[in-house]
Order: sequence, then structure tokens, then C-alpha cells
Amino acid sequence: MIAAKVIDNIWATRKADSLVGLKFMLVEILGGLDAGRLIIAADTISAGIGDRVLVSLGSSARKMMDREDVPIDAAIVGIIDEDCTF
Amino acid sequence: MIAAKVIDNIWATRKADSLVGLKFMLVEILGGLDAGRLIIAADTISAGIGDRVLVSLGSSARKMMDREDVPIDAAIVGIIDEDCTF
Amino acid sequence: MIAAKVIDNIWATRKADSLVGLKFMLVEILGGLDAGRLIIAADTISAGIGDRVLVSLGSSARKMMDREDVPIDAAIVGIIDEDCTF
Amino acid sequence: MIAAKVIDNIWATRKADSLVGLKFMLVEILGGLDAGRLIIAADTISAGIGDRVLVSLGSSARKMMDREDVPIDAAIVGIIDEDCTF
Amino acid sequence: MIAAKVIDNIWATRKADSLVGLKFMLVEILGGLDAGRLIIAADTISAGIGDRVLVSLGSSARKMMDREDVPIDAAIVGIIDEDCTF
Repeated sequence: MIAAKVIDNIWATRKADSLVGLKFMLVEILGGLDAGRLIIAADTISAGIGDRVLVSLGSSARKMMDREDVPIDAAIVGIIDEDCTF
Repeated sequence: MIAAKVIDNIWATRKADSLVGLKFMLVEILGGLDAGRLIIAADTISAGIGDRVLVSLGSSARKMMDREDVPIDAAIVGIIDEDCTF
Repeated sequence: MIAAKVIDNIWATRKADSLVGLKFMLVEILGGLDAGRLIIAADTISAGIGDRVLVSLGSSARKMMDREDVPIDAAIVGIIDEDCTF
Repeated sequence: MIAAKVIDNIWATRKADSLVGLKFMLVEILGGLDAGRLIIAADTISAGIGDRVLVSLGSSARKMMDREDVPIDAAIVGIIDEDCTF
Repeated sequence: MIAAKVIDNIWATRKADSLVGLKFMLVEILGGLDAGRLIIAADTISAGIGDRVLVSLGSSARKMMDREDVPIDAAIVGIIDEDCTF
């Protein structure tokens, strides 16, 4: 997983049918060489803008969905505790 | 997913049989450290040149196809709304 | 796999149900061009802070779990021997 | 997919049994931030040195094979038309 | 695949049960933008230090194993012929 900060919502009215109803958020990777890299992740755990989150990439992101056929490659899987410094 | 801008069509007359009939587009990643990275993505949702799109990478791209055996690793899965600023 | 050093624990109280009970650790890639890249990996083999570990990425990380539906994309799979210099 | 130019043949007499008979080619990524990155791809569509090709990476590359157990992570899936400028 | 040079053995006495008996080698990517990147790959074809090898990454690496549940994401799949220049 990577640690990232939620920056904004992303809206895409025209999209794959299997993505309808999903919430997408722009996140920015925190720390290390990848800091500043931007990813758009599906969010099913109600993350908010400003939250630091754990993002899972690739086929593992699909494990956050109820079905196997959703074409996402990034998903927020956890929200890092506020008092967790790193 | 990554946010990207559609730059051009890509034509490949000689290709794998399972790719015949698919539309391929050159997209350029927008924003962050990856800005300027180029990807060729399959498009099944009628994106146009200049559109900002969501692109899914890896095995998830194949979920945009009706069959599991299509050798693509990138697909346009959504078109970002024009009034969505980020 | 990549070689990495365990830097810290990562705490995320709010997370996917399938992640409850898993231990997450921040690791930093050692050596080469990727040195300094940060990853958050699941740990099931009791690695400690300061250990040099082998981290497996992508779908292979899920093979460390008892179930296939855990949305992790990085896992510690081994602890490099202390007298192994490289 | 990425666009790449075929640079050379790669010969490996000692290799996994499942790779015997496969043709491997060194390709160099064209354009964008990744220009100059080198990949070795399996070729089943008779690409030649100097051709510009589409290369599929990861599990999708295996979809070019008749069997699922071939350990390749890159395959040439198309040859870009000569009059296609981008 | 990527072309890499075998640098050293990696020893990890404490590791996942499914990794016991596997040989791990540190390899360094050769050529192009990725030159100098380090990977630890499983070796089942008796590569030696100094050999130039083909390394397969991701889920494809698992195809070198007899079982599907081995948590490796990199495997040596071939040894580049000594007289192959590139």
C-alpha cells in the first residue's frame, strides 16, 4: 500500500456501467521518492478531503468491491490514525 | 486510476486477433510526478481527442472487455467532467 | 521482491473489514535507484523496526493471507539475515 | 500498452521449459517520461527490428499465449502503422 | 521481462513457509532508464553470480513455481547467451 493524502473529489458522469455509484478521490502520495505522485482511487470507506489514507493498487484494489469485474486499479483501504506520525 | 488527456488515435493494422475492432488512443498523464508519461489505452466509451479521462491499468483494464483473454493493460474507464477542476 | 528496512508501525483504526487484525509497517526500499521509496506492507512474520526485510508486491502479496479477498498489495515475506551483506 | 521500438533479438538458450520456442525482442519505450526504458518482450506476431510496436505488460501479456502458465510479463501485441504519426 | 545482472545471493532464514528451499538472488537491471534498479528474484534455473538473466515480474513470476500460492513477484526465467550483445 502507499500512504496518501486525499486532495479532491473526481467527477466523471460518463463512465463504465460497473463504476456507477462509486466515489472517486484524487490522492497524492506522501513521503519518499514517490511524494507528489497523483492517483485516483475508489473510496468505499468514506474518506474525506485532507485525510491520510492507505491506498491499495492493482488487482488488490478490486478486492474492495462486491464483484470481481469492476475496472478499478486503486482503492482506499484504510484511514491512517491522526496521532500516527511517520 | 490515473487522470490523462487524450492526445491522438493509434493505428495498428497488424495486431493480435483478439484486438481487432478495438480503438486505441494515446493518452498523456496529467499532474503530479507522472505528468508527461504516455500510455496507449483501449477505449470502449467513445472518448475523444482532448478529453480528460480516467485510465485503469493492469489486469483491471481487462474488466472493460467482454472476454477475459484480451491482452490489454490499459483502458479508458471514464471521462472526467469538464467542470471538474483539480 | 525488494529489500527494505522497517521504519515504523502504521495504525489505521478505520479500515476495510478484511484488514482488521493485520499489522502494517512502513518500510523504506534499500539500495539502487529505488532507495528511499516508501511502502506500507502487511506483516505476518513478526518483523521488527530496523529489520531488513523482503517485500513482495502486487497480487503475490495476497498469497501471504489465508484468504484471497484481502485488499493488500505489499507484504513482508522474509527477514534478511543479519550477516547477509549486499 | 506502451509504444516501443524493436531494437534487437535476445537469445537465451538456458530458460524455463515453457519458454522454449518463444522469440524475445529488446524494445525501447518511445516518447514521454519513459522514453529510453528497455523491456524484453515475447513476440508472436513477427515484429522486426526497427518496427514500432504496442507492448502489453503484466498478466495481460500472458493472454498472447495459448497456455496460462508461461512466465512472461511483456508481449508485443500490435505493430503501429508506418503512417501513424504521434 | 527485464535484463539484469546477478549480483549476489540473499539469505533469509526467517521467511514464509512456502518460500523454504527457494534460492533468492539480488539482481541489478541492465541498460536504459532503469539501470541500477535492484530486485530480489527467485531462481529455479541455477543462475550464477555475474550471469545476465531475464527476470519476469509480477504474477508471471509465480508461473515458475509448481504451486500458485508462493508469494514471489520476481523470478529468473532465462540466462542470456554470453555472445548475445545488446
